[in-house]
Amino acid sequence: MFEFELIATDGPARAGRWHLPHGTVETPCFMPVGTNGTVRALAPSDLRDIGATLILGNTYHLHLRPGEDVVAKLGGLHRFMAWDGPILTDSGGFQVFSLEGLRKVTEEGVEFRSHIDGSARFLSPERVMEIEWALGPDVAMAFDHVLPGQSTQADQRDALDRTLRWLERCRDRHRELAALAPRAQTMVPIIQGGIYPDLRRVALSGILGLGQWNALAVGGLSVGEPKEAMRAVLGDLETMLPRALPRYLMGVGFPEDVVASIGLGLDLADCVAPTRMGRNGTAFTDDGPVNIRNARFREDAAPLDDGCDCETCRTFSRGYLRHLFAAEELLGLRLLSLHNVRYLIRLAGRAREAILAGRFAGWSADWMARYSIREQA
Amino acid sequence: MFEFELIATDGPARAGRWHLPHGTVETPCFMPVGTNGTVRALAPSDLRDIGATLILGNTYHLHLRPGEDVVAKLGGLHRFMAWDGPILTDSGGFQVFSLEGLRKVTEEGVEFRSHIDGSARFLSPERVMEIEWALGPDVAMAFDHVLPGQSTQADQRDALDRTLRWLERCRDRHRELAALAPRAQTMVPIIQGGIYPDLRRVALSGILGLGQWNALAVGGLSVGEPKEAMRAVLGDLETMLPRALPRYLMGVGFPEDVVASIGLGLDLADCVAPTRMGRNGTAFTDDGPVNIRNARFREDAAPLDDGCDCETCRTFSRGYLRHLFAAEELLGLRLLSLHNVRYLIRLAGRAREAILAGRFAGWSADWMARYSIREQA
Repeated sequence: MFEFELIATDGPARAGRWHLPHGTVETPCFMPVGTNGTVRALAPSDLRDIGATLILGNTYHLHLRPGEDVVAKLGGLHRFMAWDGPILTDSGGFQVFSLEGLRKVTEEGVEFRSHIDGSARFLSPERVMEIEWALGPDVAMAFDHVLPGQSTQADQRDALDRTLRWLERCRDRHRELAALAPRAQTMVPIIQGGIYPDLRRVALSGILGLGQWNALAVGGLSVGEPKEAMRAVLGDLETMLPRALPRYLMGVGFPEDVVASIGLGLDLADCVAPTRMGRNGTAFTDDGPVNIRNARFREDAAPLDDGCDCETCRTFSRGYLRHLFAAEELLGLRLLSLHNVRYLIRLAGRAREAILAGRFAGWSADWMARYSIREQA
Repeated sequence: MFEFELIATDGPARAGRWHLPHGTVETPCFMPVGTNGTVRALAPSDLRDIGATLILGNTYHLHLRPGEDVVAKLGGLHRFMAWDGPILTDSGGFQVFSLEGLRKVTEEGVEFRSHIDGSARFLSPERVMEIEWALGPDVAMAFDHVLPGQSTQADQRDALDRTLRWLERCRDRHRELAALAPRAQTMVPIIQGGIYPDLRRVALSGILGLGQWNALAVGGLSVGEPKEAMRAVLGDLETMLPRALPRYLMGVGFPEDVVASIGLGLDLADCVAPTRMGRNGTAFTDDGPVNIRNARFREDAAPLDDGCDCETCRTFSRGYLRHLFAAEELLGLRLLSLHNVRYLIRLAGRAREAILAGRFAGWSADWMARYSIREQA
């Protein structure tokens, strides 16, 4: 259980399989985000139809509403959201450090106010482990201290040291919970250190010294730093990461970032971009993002993306989709979200095929060239 | 084509089959309403899954946006909304007479302002026939003059006389269009006359004198008049309606009204209630309407309605559905809309079975008794 099979490499890019309690995940893999126990506008049946395997849930949001006790009473997160495939929950670290409002960080944990009702809340490494245990995902992320992308090296050092101390506490509490009532859940540490390669190495080394892990995550990227800095950090870090473990790049999921991260040796990515962009009327295509509200689609009988096999592209014309957005119809939000998530799942799948065929560099260069044309136009 | 088979009667209640170009409709039948070329929050695949046969489109809305020319260029309403089953379009009469704002009725037609952009518009019987011809449904409703439920007998007489004169013009224009480019579309007249049984008889007699029809509709009900008045009018009218034609009660579709109208000999009904109520968090069940936002459902693991076979009831708990509404998640709107439309389709199907078994009166009394309990509680 939790074994990662590395099937092929092509430069830094990797193709593998991650065996989780609720199913096997082929990597590279894009994970749709189900913030409130639902991938926005999509049903579990949609997710199955578009080949989703590993779904992300947000501990912060589920803790505040409906509360992990309610989820547990309703059978755990799998039963609650009716997703019987693998689930990963983040730890809430990103949310408590990025949401607006009062927040107080101590060595013990983080005091903050609920964005829903303003109530005072406290999360600590131990508490987060308990919440994730109650939610019951296959993969539970460790509680980390996340800083904005522009933070100084000194601040990043402080946060990563705290993240390591918290990881030790997460590890101990997770072991206690598992000893009390065995359950197939793995806890995954998060590498912090901002845009500073040296700090990333310190974080990695600290993590590897704290236990045997089934996967590693890279956090604190795509939080406001320049894209070049992110890619430089990942490029350096890749040379140090153990080959045997799957690598999850957190919160990075625009198509160009997913392809780039796969090229930099990452295996898993997640982002709300496909559903958020979809709700705004923007669709991902191989020719770049397209805004379906544009008047030029008014009488366009072609599918959104003629290379796509999703229900939206198989069934509806651009003219109809444009009409749904013009008329503010709910179906439009769903159909573009469905397409965008499918686009990213298929993109990871196409990258996987290219890796297996030993032609990832050429494939990704071709994809990027075509995808970038319209962005610049 | 357009033949109605009357299979069984049980008192005034009837079970039949209506053969339309895009498929056969078993009656009694509930029609979901697809105002803007989409049954709100539902995809055509959902509608197929829940057994929808005949879908309603709104001529007024589709004329204003995207325009019948766009729908025609994109292959007609069936192709546009990707529904290959039967479609009926209303005539816009109800909308132009019930929407707020400037409106001028002459013998020629109705001047009004678009609710979207305030532009001046004009609809006449001929224009409506042209629009519905361009949209291309199986069934096109005649253009009628609809008055509020509290209108005087004199006003209703005036409106029904105008509706009859307009019907003649609809008939002539529809014949011309069919002669120019034959297409399997039937045009259906609407009986007006408000809550006055005598006027309803005048309207019916006028309509029957104007041509051979494939169906008859009853309009101008459920527009503010007392429920008893509606039922009295329908009870009287039923004795006069030709047995051989299907009878469509327009815009009446709360569960109790659907059961009552079937008992009064009506075959078809439509209403936005199931989707509108669904979006507000209200679900139809045999025990009456239920508001899923209620705190008592917080940890309720039971399905919304344990007699229901829809995806919502097969898949999700009340606790989860309540959470979706609390978190304002789009999926909640869809899941309750899906259930409510399925509830009404299944309700019409259950009524049909009862009629075929000769036990409609007992079935409907039992259903009504159970459904009404919670309403009063």
